[in-house]
Order: sequence, then C-alpha cells, then structure tokens
Amino acid sequence: MKGPSVSAIPPQYVNANTPERYVVGVDFGTLSGRAVVVRVSDGAELGSAVHPYANAVIDTVLPASGVPLPPDWALQDPDDYREVLRRAVPAALRASGVAPGDVVGIGTDFTACTVLPTSRDGVPLCELPDLRDRPHAYPKLWKHHAAQPHADRINALARERGETWLARYGGRISAEWQFAKGLQLLEEDPATYARADRWIEAADWIIWELCGAETRNVCTAGYKGIHQDDRYPSRDFLAALNPDFGGFVSDKIEHPLLPLGSRAGGLTAEAAGWTGLPVGIAVGVGNVDAHVTAPAARAIDPGQLLAVMGTSTCHVMNSDQLAEVPGMCGVVRDGITTGYWGYEAGQSGVGDIFGWYVEHGVPPEYHERARTAGVSVHDLLSREAAEQPVGAHGLVALDWHNGNRSVLVDHHLSGLLLGMTLHTRPPDVYRALLEATAFGTRVIIDAFEDAGVPVSELVVAGGLLGNPVLMQIYADVTRRPLSLIDSVQGPALGSAIHAAVAAGAYPDVPAAAAAMGKVRRAVYRPDPGRADAYDALYAEYRTLHDYFGRGTNDVMHRLRMIRNAARSGHSPAATTVGVAR
Amino acid sequence: MKGPSVSAIPPQYVNANTPERYVVGVDFGTLSGRAVVVRVSDGAELGSAVHPYANAVIDTVLPASGVPLPPDWALQDPDDYREVLRRAVPAALRASGVAPGDVVGIGTDFTACTVLPTSRDGVPLCELPDLRDRPHAYPKLWKHHAAQPHADRINALARERGETWLARYGGRISAEWQFAKGLQLLEEDPATYARADRWIEAADWIIWELCGAETRNVCTAGYKGIHQDDRYPSRDFLAALNPDFGGFVSDKIEHPLLPLGSRAGGLTAEAAGWTGLPVGIAVGVGNVDAHVTAPAARAIDPGQLLAVMGTSTCHVMNSDQLAEVPGMCGVVRDGITTGYWGYEAGQSGVGDIFGWYVEHGVPPEYHERARTAGVSVHDLLSREAAEQPVGAHGLVALDWHNGNRSVLVDHHLSGLLLGMTLHTRPPDVYRALLEATAFGTRVIIDAFEDAGVPVSELVVAGGLLGNPVLMQIYADVTRRPLSLIDSVQGPALGSAIHAAVAAGAYPDVPAAAAAMGKVRRAVYRPDPGRADAYDALYAEYRTLHDYFGRGTNDVMHRLRMIRNAARSGHSPAATTVGVAR
Repeated sequence: MKGPSVSAIPPQYVNANTPERYVVGVDFGTLSGRAVVVRVSDGAELGSAVHPYANAVIDTVLPASGVPLPPDWALQDPDDYREVLRRAVPAALRASGVAPGDVVGIGTDFTACTVLPTSRDGVPLCELPDLRDRPHAYPKLWKHHAAQPHADRINALARERGETWLARYGGRISAEWQFAKGLQLLEEDPATYARADRWIEAADWIIWELCGAETRNVCTAGYKGIHQDDRYPSRDFLAALNPDFGGFVSDKIEHPLLPLGSRAGGLTAEAAGWTGLPVGIAVGVGNVDAHVTAPAARAIDPGQLLAVMGTSTCHVMNSDQLAEVPGMCGVVRDGITTGYWGYEAGQSGVGDIFGWYVEHGVPPEYHERARTAGVSVHDLLSREAAEQPVGAHGLVALDWHNGNRSVLVDHHLSGLLLGMTLHTRPPDVYRALLEATAFGTRVIIDAFEDAGVPVSELVVAGGLLGNPVLMQIYADVTRRPLSLIDSVQGPALGSAIHAAVAAGAYPDVPAAAAAMGKVRRAVYRPDPGRADAYDALYAEYRTLHDYFGRGTNDVMHRLRMIRNAARSGHSPAATTVGVAR
Repeated sequence: MKGPSVSAIPPQYVNANTPERYVVGVDFGTLSGRAVVVRVSDGAELGSAVHPYANAVIDTVLPASGVPLPPDWALQDPDDYREVLRRAVPAALRASGVAPGDVVGIGTDFTACTVLPTSRDGVPLCELPDLRDRPHAYPKLWKHHAAQPHADRINALARERGETWLARYGGRISAEWQFAKGLQLLEEDPATYARADRWIEAADWIIWELCGAETRNVCTAGYKGIHQDDRYPSRDFLAALNPDFGGFVSDKIEHPLLPLGSRAGGLTAEAAGWTGLPVGIAVGVGNVDAHVTAPAARAIDPGQLLAVMGTSTCHVMNSDQLAEVPGMCGVVRDGITTGYWGYEAGQSGVGDIFGWYVEHGVPPEYHERARTAGVSVHDLLSREAAEQPVGAHGLVALDWHNGNRSVLVDHHLSGLLLGMTLHTRPPDVYRALLEATAFGTRVIIDAFEDAGVPVSELVVAGGLLGNPVLMQIYADVTRRPLSLIDSVQGPALGSAIHAAVAAGAYPDVPAAAAAMGKVRRAVYRPDPGRADAYDALYAEYRTLHDYFGRGTNDVMHRLRMIRNAARSGHSPAATTVGVAR
C-alpha cells in the first residue's frame, strides 16, 4: 500500500505505473459539511457534495424540547455531523464517478474549539434520553461565548501563578476553548459534568464515529486544549480555579496525542454503511479547518502565512522559531505540520463586515446599478473604489465590528469610521472597510516580525480571494506577494491530503501537499508607490488601534456596558457610575 | 404715523381704533428670496412668495463668460437679488389680498457675510461691462471659503499684536468674513480692488437699492466687519497685513452705523416700480437672517438661546453680560436687539448630516418601507430610533461632517462614528447622528455658561423643528425646555417686525416682537432619567471632541491633506512627510 514520494515523481509517471487511488476529505463547517473525492496522484477534485445541518446553530432554544438558551450560547446537534457522513460522502462519491473500492482513506477537519461531553464509549451526553433537555449536554460550538467569565478567571489565575503556558497563547486563552467551556459546564451544571466521562473536540469525536476508537490530535490539544511541552495545565492549577475541577484533565481529557496525518484506525462497518466506503480503509486523525488548509494551499514552509479569508480570517503559519508573540491565538509544536512551530492568529470580522455594510449601509442607487450591470453590490463597490488613488477618500476605519481576535484579543471592542464629510460616498466607505481589514492583517504580521518570526508571503484561501481589489489592497498594505489557493475546496482538499498520508500514499504531509496541494504564486504583487501611501494611513490606523484598543480611551467597553444595561431595561444612568465627566 | 406701543394694548383694541396696516419682510437666502406680507397689529402672515435665484450659487464658472473658478469659491449675481424684489414681493402682495397702499414699510434680511465691491454710487463692480469677466468683481457668498489663508494671517497677526477685538470673536475671525475676503481681493486682483469704492455687505447693498442711499447696520458691522467698541481694526494693523491694505476701512467700509429697527430711508420710485409698493414708505436697515429671527421667535430676553436649525444651525442670544466665550462666532453690542450684548455661535452641519446619511447610507428596505407607509425616510428612521432607550445603540458620533464652527472653529475637521457592531442598524446610526448634533449644541451652551453667560431656554426656528424626536433629544441632552417659533417664515417675519418698527408702528423691536412674534413655549421638556443617561454619552462625546478637535490626535487634518494630495494627482506618499509612524 505504501506509495512513492510523489514530490519526486511526476504525476504522469505515477499514473502510468500504479492504479489510480482516491481519498475522501470531509470539512465540517459551522452550518454544513462538505465532502470531496480527490485523486491521490495529483489532487484532482473529482466530485463534491454539501449537506446543511438540520439544526444548524442552536442559539435560542433546544430542538424538540424547546428549552430556552441564555444569550451568547451556541450549540450543535451531533447527529447533524453523522448526517454529513450519511449523505454528503455518498453524494460526492456518486458525483465523482469513482468506484468506492478505489478509495483508500478518509480525512476530516472541523471547526474548533467545538467541544462536547460524551460517555466512556463516545456517546454524546445529549443523546442520552435523560439528558436531552440539558443545554450543557450538547456540543458547544466555537462561537459559544457564554464562558467569558470563566476564561477571565483562568487568565487571571494563570497570570497570578506565572503559568508558563499562558505566553504560548499570546497572554490570553479564549472563552471559546476547552477549559473555559469545561469550567462553565462544571459550575453551571455539575450533574452533567459528573456524567461526562470524556470532554472531547468534535474534531476527535467524529473520528471516534468513523473508526470506533477514541483518539486525540496534537493540533486541537495544543491550540484549544492548552497542551504545551507535553503536558496540560496542572491539577493544582485546575483545583485552584474550583476544587471540583482538579480532575478535569486526568478524568476527561488525557489521552495519547497523535500527529497530524497519522492513521487513527480503520473505517468501521457501521461507518462504511453510512458512507458507502470500504470497511477498514484508513481514517486520518482529527484536524482543524484552517490548519488543514495550509498543505492544501502549499503554505507550509516557514514564513508562508496562510490567511483563510471568509466571514472572519484565520491565519496559520509554520516557523522554525519558537517565540511568544503578544496577542497571537497560539503557538503549537507540530500544530500545522510535524517538525515546525505552528502559529495561529485571527481577525474576528472580515467578510462579515463587508456584508454588514452592503446590507445595512448602501443606498438603493447602488443596488439598482448592480442589478442593471448584472454584478453583486460588492463587485460594483469594489470596482468603483478601485478607481481612487490611495487616501483619496479621506477615511480610516477600525475593523472591530465583531471584536478583535488578534492582537488585542478583545471581543468587546467595536467598529469605528473616521473622516466622513458630506461628500463621502459608499465606494469610499467600502474601500475604507476593505483597507481596515488589511491593516488588521498587517498588525498581526508586524507582531510576528517584531517577535522574531519572519513573514515572507501571504497565501490566501477562502471565499474572499475572488475579490481582486481586496487582494491588491492586501498586497500593497502588507508589502508582500499574495498567492492564492487554486481550489474552492480548501479545507476538504486538506483533509483529503491528510487521508492520503494516513493511507500511506505519501510518506508525510509535505510530500502529499507538493503533489496534491494547489496554489498560484504571487498573483498579486505590492506596488511600491501605493505601499508608501498606505504607510501613512496605516500609521493613523495604528494610533487609533492603540488608543481605543489598549485602554487609553475605553469608550467602546463603556458604550457596550451602557448598551447592555439599556437593553436589559436597567436605567442607563444607574449603570454608568464611574464614567468620567 | 407713529403707532401705539402694542405691547401694552391688546390687538383687538388696536384693530378697532386704527385702520389695519401692513409691512413686507424679505428674506434673502442662499438659493432664493422669500417675501411675506404681515399685518402690523398681530403679525398675521397674509401672503408669501419665493423666487429662486437664476444663477443660484456660482461655484464652477462665471455665468455667460464661462470663466472658471478655483476650488472653494462661491459667488452670486446681484441681479438675482433685485429679481426677488421684482417678483416675490408683488407675488406675495397679490397672494395676501392686501392693498399696496396699506403697506407702510419693508424690511429685509440677508445671508452673511455675503459681501461685494461697488462703485461710489452702489453699482456692483460685476455689472460694469469691463469687469464682468473678473471673478473678484462679484459678490462673495458666505460659503466662499477660498480666503482661509488670509484669515489665518489676520488671526496670527492679531494674536501677535494682542488686538483686543480678537477675543470678541472667540479667538478667531472667519475666512467667511469681510476682512479675509477683502484681503483676498486685494492680493489676487489688485486692479479690481482699486476700482472698489465701497466694500459692502449684501445686507446693506440691498437697502441702497431700495432707498437710494448707502447705510450700514450695527449687526453685520459687528459680526462680520470686526467693528467693536466704536471702531474697526486700525490702519496700522491693516497695513501690517499688506501695505496696500491700510486704507481698506477708511476708503471702502467706514460709514455711520444705524441700529437695528431704524429707518434707512424711503422707498425710491424705482424700487416702488419693482415691488408695487408705495413710494416713500419706510425701508428698515439691513439685517442678518439668523439675528432677525430672534424677535420673530420672541427669543430676545437674556438667556433665551435661539437655534435656527436647518442644514446648519445658527445660535443667537442676548445677554446683559459681556464675556469672551472661547470658540463663539462673536459678541456684538446691540447686535441682535438694542441694549444687549448679542452672542452668535453655530454648528456647520446639522440637517445636512441627516440628509447625507439618508441619501448615502440607508439601504433599500427603509426607502421601500417609508414609501409604503407614506412617510419620509427621516420620519421612519426617527420613529424607529425613538423606540430605543438612551444608549441602546451603543454608538457615539462626532457631527463634524461639514467641519466645526463652534467652539472649535475648524472647517477641516470631519465626522466620526464609533461603536458599530454587526448588529448595528440604520435607526441606530440615525439616532447617533441626531444625538451628536445635540451634543454639539450642549458644548456651545456649556461654553457660554462656563464664561458666565447663562442659557436658560432653547428657542428653535428652522425646518428641523418639525422632527419631534430630534426636539425631545435636544431637550433631554441640554436639560432645558425647548420652545418653538410658531411660524414657517422665521426670518421674513423678523424682517417684517423690523419694518414695522422702522415705520414707527412700534417704539422698538421688543415691543413689535411682543405683538407680532410667535412662539410656543416649552413644547418639549427634559426627562430627568433620559437626561441622566445622556450625561454618560455626552461625557464620551466630550472626550472624543477634545481628543480629535484640539490637536491631541490631528488625524482628521492629516487625512484631509492626504486626500487633497491624492485627488490632485500628487503622490500621497510624497505628501505625508512628517506623519508619525
């Protein structure tokens, strides 16, 4: 079964001497799962299918029982994940025309941190009849933001105790991650906490469903599970948070970690029945949607920063260096590909902000002209915005409409637009918003470089790579060449690459990536004149970024508190004590 | 001819014992002139007519000759003013049904500073055949902003020399006023400057047209002509600006000043022919549109701040106190009504900002819903915005889209919106903009009170008084009762009141105002709870106001320089030297 290292052998040679083999990659997103059938020899994508989750994001009431959820909750139904295996995988197979018997492996990736409590044998607690009405028995989606107080306590205690792992997460762990969500579970529903034999990433749970055995992967353990230098946070630390939390790791999490690209096991008969794939084929270990995309985009060499740009942006990058980059999401050994320090950072709002503006801030004239021209409003505004010289709109924006993930790590910041006159028009505002997200990316790049981690190239995946105006702005603002993934299936292709390695078709992920990954290099190059001009605007962005983002003027937090009090019916006057007059 | 002091005699008594008499008020605005026929006994408005200026604002090329104008220029055609007399006055008379023989006086008000060069006998230089192609021969409209460098020099020299008049204008005279525009004329077109025997406000020039003699009024001389303590700036000061400017006052401006409400002369036969009014009736002295509205709105007692709220807002208020209020437009003895110190302040953008937002920032859904409901988009947004508790939108804005007149006196500031999230909707933004202008008014009120000039009541005139949501916000934010003028003809009614005094129907303007002015007192009263809540938002506004408006972060000026350089085709990079990184 062990295939040649295709990085050294041209595909036509492989094709001529070995029968074609195929792998399936499955990407579990926020609202749907997507399967793609990929040829092992060259990464050709032969068929794909999408299955939307029936229960999507559960953020108001539990399905069936109607139990209401508090604000900031976001749950999912694990059977929606199985349905992707039952429906999308067979559909992709049919679309590909590939004979199931020629498929040698399956790989997956998942949103993260999406985490759930299960029984010892992997049954999600929410599927136990007596726990179906308990919100805490369900998987908590990455965007479940109700554990912020717990995260705050974890951070405060870690700082107080000088925990060395804290700096590996830019100085702050997130409310989205395993420990904050686990502490919330313990303190808000101790009975369900007690029933949870395992506390497991959905990324690993789906592998359990496929191969019948619990496994854990180095990626989610590192980025979402605070696993550093071969250990999790200590029993002491956990017990100091809450005496009943001391056994959280030893009882519910601890498990050998497998490297990315390794084989978790063989496909069970039950999962073979769901998917139509052969029993026993290789199942790769779990992985994360952004990280798995790096080999798909051939962005795994040190200095190649992959930006997965959609509603938000996730950045991942390999490096030879270990550095503690302030405000990054995390650095994990072997976290992207084995042998490197893998860095992660992110921007909470990118495409979301452009979409919000087009939906809620663009007047009828532009919608009508876009319709007449047969283009989207985004395309129309981008085109008109592109005609301006840099700085001609006189605007600067802060891209914090959905908070700031890196480098400020503050979900309670908000957006800003400055410089409007009576002559400001929608293409001006739209361009200022595009630029603001590019400035946000540059802040992250600067943080890496200032910490001694070089960034030489941007590689873009995700839906926004189709906007050439945006791409050119990013090249100009960051003064770096911009390469684009050459696939619309980034994560699923990445999962397929890992499946191929797990199946033994390649010796390692880099070799598989060289053969199966797809990128167009340096599609956009920075223009020196525009880059110079952007330096001046970026300087303004940085000043505002630090003034509003680092506490000099904490107006965004105060306005949010006033807003929340006003909406909850408390007298705003009574809640603004301490606001300077 | 001298009538009784109606303030002491009920109108019905007057009616029973004297024949009804009438006056005509004419308001010369930016785009049109409006005439109204008013009953002397009670201020009843019996007929009105509007005549739009054929040449409106001349800001691109001279009419007929097509001579192009530089940026920031704004001229007018004086014959457009005469056309108002020829057309609007007779039309208003016809509409009123009043017999021309029963009209006893005519009064006028004008935009200011709108100023023009004339021959010794009052012929506008632009009407001399050899000067028709000279831009500098035309009246410079108030919004002509091309004399900023000249204003800057006047201010710098006045500060350097410690000229005592400077503090009477809040520390800065405006580029819109007589001296800056006059210096620009001298230095850019000395030949036309030499031909200008008189440099005269349009407010006074139109009186010359009506009564055949040059007059000057205390109001424009004080607010726009730097006339303080019975004198203009000295020959020394003027010569220090430019040796050829030394005789500017003595040669072109100096003339006895007449108090407001006095008789400038009798209507000439020629003007009687234009207007259809009797020869020899009283012509009141010139006046300014905002100031003349104060008696029309019965806002002439100390502490009654009149806010004329339209595209921009002009504030005028009488006081017993002389104070040097930082950032006000000016304080002039007898400048509003005789016997008081008259204060002026202003906001450069108010209704303009709301209009800009509705036109350029509101998506189709709201336009469609407004159409369906048969209301304006402004009404729809106001209604929906009104349903929120104070602070529920989480936003704060700076209302500087058209610069800041008071108290920062800086036309190169720009707008700001802060606090947006992906959940921000148009009624949120609209309300934040309404509130920002109310905060701007409160800054002005605070400046007056901090300088020892009490403000007890707001009296609102102008088109925006029809928005009850806006009015309530102003009452809450300023914690003051809001009274409304009870006429849609504010300035023209005020001119008619002055005409009645000039005609001897009342002994003085306050007596005429008591009989003819119209106000609804305390239509809106502050709600203590909302006022408390607004204190917190106002504190945020003030912090941002000072940070961006007083030079701590001069980003708005830098963005404007970058913008202007980018638009003019200069490399932005080359023009941003000195911008801190």
